[in-house]
Amino acid sequence: MLPVALFIGVDIGGTKVLATAVSSSGRVRGTAVRTTPGRDVAASLIEDALTEAVQELAGVRRVGAIGIAAAGFVDAQGERVRFAPHLPWRDEGVRARLAERWSAPVVLDNDANCAARAELAHGAVGAAGSAAVVTLGTGIGGALIVDGAVIRGYNGMAGEFGHTQVVPGGRACECGGTGCWEQYCSGNALTRFVREQGVEDLTGREITAAAEQGDPVALAAFASVGEWLGVGLANLVASFDPQIVVVGGGLSAAGDLLLEPARRALRESLVGAEHRTVPPVVRAALGPEAGAIGAADLARQTFRSAGSRARARLRAVRETDRHR
Amino acid sequence: MLPVALFIGVDIGGTKVLATAVSSSGRVRGTAVRTTPGRDVAASLIEDALTEAVQELAGVRRVGAIGIAAAGFVDAQGERVRFAPHLPWRDEGVRARLAERWSAPVVLDNDANCAARAELAHGAVGAAGSAAVVTLGTGIGGALIVDGAVIRGYNGMAGEFGHTQVVPGGRACECGGTGCWEQYCSGNALTRFVREQGVEDLTGREITAAAEQGDPVALAAFASVGEWLGVGLANLVASFDPQIVVVGGGLSAAGDLLLEPARRALRESLVGAEHRTVPPVVRAALGPEAGAIGAADLARQTFRSAGSRARARLRAVRETDRHR
Repeated sequence: MLPVALFIGVDIGGTKVLATAVSSSGRVRGTAVRTTPGRDVAASLIEDALTEAVQELAGVRRVGAIGIAAAGFVDAQGERVRFAPHLPWRDEGVRARLAERWSAPVVLDNDANCAARAELAHGAVGAAGSAAVVTLGTGIGGALIVDGAVIRGYNGMAGEFGHTQVVPGGRACECGGTGCWEQYCSGNALTRFVREQGVEDLTGREITAAAEQGDPVALAAFASVGEWLGVGLANLVASFDPQIVVVGGGLSAAGDLLLEPARRALRESLVGAEHRTVPPVVRAALGPEAGAIGAADLARQTFRSAGSRARARLRAVRETDRHR
Repeated sequence: MLPVALFIGVDIGGTKVLATAVSSSGRVRGTAVRTTPGRDVAASLIEDALTEAVQELAGVRRVGAIGIAAAGFVDAQGERVRFAPHLPWRDEGVRARLAERWSAPVVLDNDANCAARAELAHGAVGAAGSAAVVTLGTGIGGALIVDGAVIRGYNGMAGEFGHTQVVPGGRACECGGTGCWEQYCSGNALTRFVREQGVEDLTGREITAAAEQGDPVALAAFASVGEWLGVGLANLVASFDPQIVVVGGGLSAAGDLLLEPARRALRESLVGAEHRTVPPVVRAALGPEAGAIGAADLARQTFRSAGSRARARLRAVRETDRHR
């Protein structure tokens, strides 16, 4: 038998590169962190940072495969980063280039898709066959799970819920649109709300702490962002009818401060609420490492050994037999 | 060999019951029509109307199965009509009751799902693996196709796009909500627009005819409804990223009068339009019989003969073999 290979997931966000070694049960066995070099630098700099983090983590062990979760648009084939607002990649064939540089199998997907995949395999989605996963950080990331799989979309861009318009002619968004959901429901929306009340420069974490201590401005900020969360979720639920809604990302650390107003607004806004099961809105289970865990899972499932592929085939034939 | 059985699809809308006999290629071989008895009558009256239409169509032929496309919420099991705004059914186990009454296999689904299934099998969806199908009649019906199948949702209620909120605190909707998409983009929205310009009581068909002759009020009505169509489609496309968008229903008869402003607004509103393939927005191919055709297809596919089921199993095993 071969020695057990390492499966690595790397999450590349606007501020940091997080590389993780992940067990088959989704447990993080080790991490390595680098700072993201910025968006207006050569693409090679972000790839150097990635390489350093992966090398630090792998050491001398055999790497089975590496999964990359990127904060940006990844094409449907998982080959290219089409566009990433916070990263220097501009329509570049990142997967093949890194696979060659690392002499290892590499897979690539959007960070929100990877986080959803992790919540599906090891987290809050659990046994639910369908889910909407909304990641509230600076903006909104999202993913849809149908029949136990993440829907990637024709361009690989499904799940961009943050840029659905909820207010015609509303706030200008970085995407070029107006009135996008993430302008009303995100970490940025929370800090803006507080700033507009005349309180300067509080972080999301500070606003959460203030709300937990009963500060009325902080509580009002969560009431606003939470209500917008529920209104947007009502649109998602009307469209997809998922079994469960999972809310992750930094803002979800606020728990019921955020989720209670969201649940209320969802019940009030959802069409036919009295004729259906309104989906539970739950907090993501895996925290900030979800994207990296999902990327490692994707790598593991894509590059299984020949032996496990043969076993999978046997299982598939048996399933066919059972369902005839 | 047995004589070929008849597969019947019945579309039950707010104004009429349309029963059709449909060939395996989706061709309508015959129709029978009854008036819908209304919403405030005994449920047995709508079932009498259905029975008459089916009997007229079937005559003495052997019926293989009957599919019912209902304008309302159908549960995920396809057993019950949970709620139907224009029909007398209130959470009733319609499928089993009619199967017993007719001594024939019966399947039940939402009318928009059935129309999407027909456009997938025989119409405008064609070879596209994923599609958003929007049916513009009095209101908006909708369905999502992913991997060549209609997504039904946990409650069987996926695709209720018409009741996503596009204007906070906007126009009151029959569903109890405010600012629902169908209040701005539907046959009702079109006639309301014209009425608000001081022109009384024109039907959608009359407004279409007037617009085709260059009437400025009618053209402005289509510009408004078409733009709202594009804005709402941008939200759908941001969320699902389908390969194609199909627009059906009575209003789609206006063709490019409606679809051109929609395509323009979609391109302008869609996130990352310059980094993706913006899906084509095309008119449905099957016209007003789409729901009935899809219901007949559903019946045929659900109740195939034992022989064809055995053949299907053989195909499945071969597929497994090919993909190993």
